[in-house]
Amino acid sequence: MTRRNLPALLVAMGGASGASAAKPNEAIAAIKKADLAFCEAAKARGLDGWMSWFAEDATAFPPGKDLIHGRAALRAFYSGMFARKDFYIDWAPVQADAAASGDMGYTIGKAKFRWTDKDGKTVNATGKYLTVWKKQKDGSWKVVADLGN
Amino acid sequence: MTRRNLPALLVAMGGASGASAAKPNEAIAAIKKADLAFCEAAKARGLDGWMSWFAEDATAFPPGKDLIHGRAALRAFYSGMFARKDFYIDWAPVQADAAASGDMGYTIGKAKFRWTDKDGKTVNATGKYLTVWKKQKDGSWKVVADLGN
Repeated sequence: MTRRNLPALLVAMGGASGASAAKPNEAIAAIKKADLAFCEAAKARGLDGWMSWFAEDATAFPPGKDLIHGRAALRAFYSGMFARKDFYIDWAPVQADAAASGDMGYTIGKAKFRWTDKDGKTVNATGKYLTVWKKQKDGSWKVVADLGN
Repeated sequence: MTRRNLPALLVAMGGASGASAAKPNEAIAAIKKADLAFCEAAKARGLDGWMSWFAEDATAFPPGKDLIHGRAALRAFYSGMFARKDFYIDWAPVQADAAASGDMGYTIGKAKFRWTDKDGKTVNATGKYLTVWKKQKDGSWKVVADLGN
């Protein structure tokens, strides 16, 4: 270890300068991409695709009920949404930010929903959402909390 | 610079071991405390106290309307809530997490609301929320996004 090695060490460790420049920008790009892939998965594979983007310990916010945690509880809750006839969902992030360490971030976006109600009528709805993302031990980004209105 | 100094350097820089242990735990404690102080400010000073915890570029999610950004727009939106007669709000976080760099995190919690409606009737409501916190340049924690249902 000599002074000569120090700059390389700082870069390798993600020290001050590295963390404040590259890491959050990389993370912001990654979670925007993840958010779009999350939507594509939901479109292509419905509930299974939707659930594939949640972390094991994710939290959801069922309207009028208590908080729920974990993939099994989330799957039961979200199954109702995907059970709607002709259910269609689409969304895209409009803003995102991430921590200096590049391991946590959030997306904010707008969503569109469409389904056929019990009277056979097409229902169109729009929403906005706040999604918190956390980088997992395997390097993948997963949703730890998702709430919309 | 000798090998002898390396452990101290790693700690001072918040490198790998430091970042994964101390920083997120400190940040988690700080944002839980901030969330409770945010509530105390809203109780003590109403809209002014509520607004004192939002970052300059914070985003809010008005139901049925588009996203809004920035303290002026947020103040106009939230003023309706605090204008309710006998308005009372209380909340507390039930979980929190933060990035390894200790500069971003989120709280999830439960809220209670009470007010008197136009017919003089007391309305009680409950809710859940997801709040994203970001450490500001001055070292303070502020809310960058807050959504409840």
